[in-house]
Amino acid sequence: MSACEFESVEKCLEAHLPQAELSEVRRVLFGKETLKLDLPTSAAEAASERDFELKGFRFEAAPEQLRPPRRVRVGLVQHRIVLPTDAPVLDQVSAVHSRVGEIVEVAAMCGVNVVCFQEAWTMPFAFCTREKEPWTEFAESAEGGNTTRFCQELARKHNMVVVSPMLEREELHGTLWNTAVVISNTGNVLGKSRKNHIPRIGDFNESTYYMEGNTGHAVFQTQFGRIAVNICYGRHHPLNWFMYSMNGAEIIFNPSATVGALSEAMWPIEARNAAIANHCFTCAVNRVGTEHFKSEFTSGDGKKAHHDFGHFYGSSYVAAPDSSRTPGLSRTRDGLLVVEMDLNLNRQMSDKWSFKMTGRYAEYADELTKAVRQDFKPNIVKE
Amino acid sequence: MSACEFESVEKCLEAHLPQAELSEVRRVLFGKETLKLDLPTSAAEAASERDFELKGFRFEAAPEQLRPPRRVRVGLVQHRIVLPTDAPVLDQVSAVHSRVGEIVEVAAMCGVNVVCFQEAWTMPFAFCTREKEPWTEFAESAEGGNTTRFCQELARKHNMVVVSPMLEREELHGTLWNTAVVISNTGNVLGKSRKNHIPRIGDFNESTYYMEGNTGHAVFQTQFGRIAVNICYGRHHPLNWFMYSMNGAEIIFNPSATVGALSEAMWPIEARNAAIANHCFTCAVNRVGTEHFKSEFTSGDGKKAHHDFGHFYGSSYVAAPDSSRTPGLSRTRDGLLVVEMDLNLNRQMSDKWSFKMTGRYAEYADELTKAVRQDFKPNIVKE
Repeated sequence: MSACEFESVEKCLEAHLPQAELSEVRRVLFGKETLKLDLPTSAAEAASERDFELKGFRFEAAPEQLRPPRRVRVGLVQHRIVLPTDAPVLDQVSAVHSRVGEIVEVAAMCGVNVVCFQEAWTMPFAFCTREKEPWTEFAESAEGGNTTRFCQELARKHNMVVVSPMLEREELHGTLWNTAVVISNTGNVLGKSRKNHIPRIGDFNESTYYMEGNTGHAVFQTQFGRIAVNICYGRHHPLNWFMYSMNGAEIIFNPSATVGALSEAMWPIEARNAAIANHCFTCAVNRVGTEHFKSEFTSGDGKKAHHDFGHFYGSSYVAAPDSSRTPGLSRTRDGLLVVEMDLNLNRQMSDKWSFKMTGRYAEYADELTKAVRQDFKPNIVKE
Repeated sequence: MSACEFESVEKCLEAHLPQAELSEVRRVLFGKETLKLDLPTSAAEAASERDFELKGFRFEAAPEQLRPPRRVRVGLVQHRIVLPTDAPVLDQVSAVHSRVGEIVEVAAMCGVNVVCFQEAWTMPFAFCTREKEPWTEFAESAEGGNTTRFCQELARKHNMVVVSPMLEREELHGTLWNTAVVISNTGNVLGKSRKNHIPRIGDFNESTYYMEGNTGHAVFQTQFGRIAVNICYGRHHPLNWFMYSMNGAEIIFNPSATVGALSEAMWPIEARNAAIANHCFTCAVNRVGTEHFKSEFTSGDGKKAHHDFGHFYGSSYVAAPDSSRTPGLSRTRDGLLVVEMDLNLNRQMSDKWSFKMTGRYAEYADELTKAVRQDFKPNIVKE
């Protein structure tokens, strides 16, 4: 069985483990059982016709006396590129718009309030090629580009907040950024959040195309809760998640583009650790499929030049602050994961575990400030 | 199957999954396969006679031109208490000394260089009772107590660094601390590291007994590498792991005492995330068994008073910076996990992933300094 065929850990366990063991294995691996969310039959049918996986789960919180539940439904969309990477740029973008548009229609049928797409969703993940053209032509204005206008229409039509991670062209200076545009359910651009940490690993030195973001750790107050966007490689940096949480994020999205050989064993760990440590929900979104490029490229590993860099393994999932998580979407298919979460769970877990209260942040601020100075003396005890 | 009987996720998967799927499941869940470490037959026999589990694994690094391998063997010891909790204090301590002494003998046969015991290893984890007596009598001087003398003998006899987490009595002020004493393989006390973060959750408000540590993030330079100790609840705080790493830790031990209902789904996540994020090895050690106390106590959960607070699930394991990990020790038995690691892997993973270089720590120092001030204005964007 090749890594491109294997559908998911969850399905495999379900198929082979006896019931009593399955329930213990799930408890240890995935925490408290995630409940199934009933979705309309019409949505299931539409997903089947349009050939993508649709799954629904929910996280509940305990009833409280003074606060009503704060239930929100998020939708995570994972998809392959639609046209070959050498098709004309505008055709590629339009084809992806159509595909995602039809998935978002189903999200609307499922009552999704906030939808998040994968990193650089309108384009192939071409940064491995080191070619500037035609890939920089996929960059658009965050505020007024085609893609943002498309998302604004979706937002208005479906009364849905849209998180749209894209390659941004800042027209005034000609600079590029890896940016998530956050569009309110009113259709207004609420703001944008640029990728804070840039990988220089394997096929990707993405600083060939764009540099570290300058939007800090912005959190967006939407009608459905306070959300933030930690783009891709930022998930490896616990401080990045932490600082979004310090600014009040209740749900942190992690739109990504990452392949099996590089990161698959990290994928189930990092977003989940962030949900636990920060008493919030995290939503990890990855693209699927293998993308072929016309020009060959090397990977700095001594191997021959090639035309693709491996399989994007999908597996999008949501992690909760109580250390539970949903199963992932498929490793191989387009999909929509609909998750209802009661945001009251965040404060309940914070009251239970008290990581913010026991965090001693003033001391860390002081230690970190010292640690970044040139005259830093590490605290090393010798005999 | 009750949670006290279920032996381990790894054994269950091995027993039921077909080979092709097993290898995919392991790859996704546990990363690159951990190699078995050959241990002497005499050690296996001694472990069997002494009724504890013995497992050995190794992590290799790629050969380098300028640095020889830096192989070190660590031993993690997990065990039940030996005598009932109402036996005389000194008898309880002596019995545990004997038990751990016989396990350490086997560790020596396996060539272990650094051994780490579980949190507060000389005593039952009695902090749930809220009784001061007789539990505070288990506290000893870190530098000159019985237990430290015992560990110094072990260290000298076996040429082994000993990490001894214990309840410390600071004689001058009468204060108690939750402390790990680090004893050099020469037998000298190298120093101590006090628990930085104190839980207030479920059965445990441990600040009834001791307060937050004042030893910062000390790292100990031993003959076998630079080690640090993040005690128990500190594993929930990514900043805690991070700051040990900023001070140069190559191996971070996490001696713990934690039970199933509370934390079992977090256990495989947190130490492993820390190893990935900080390019270092982490060693998670938990005790096993259920401990019964003569006096009943309540748990603040509306339930009846009871005499124990649940099953310590063992499952001690080592996580590597390449996102792989060893299988865990049993959930139910005393055990010794021997792991050989080539510390060169840390720098190799740092060179590959570059989290320290891409970490933007100066900006976080600035942001965190602002975030802890009373006049902090969170970065929240509104429509």
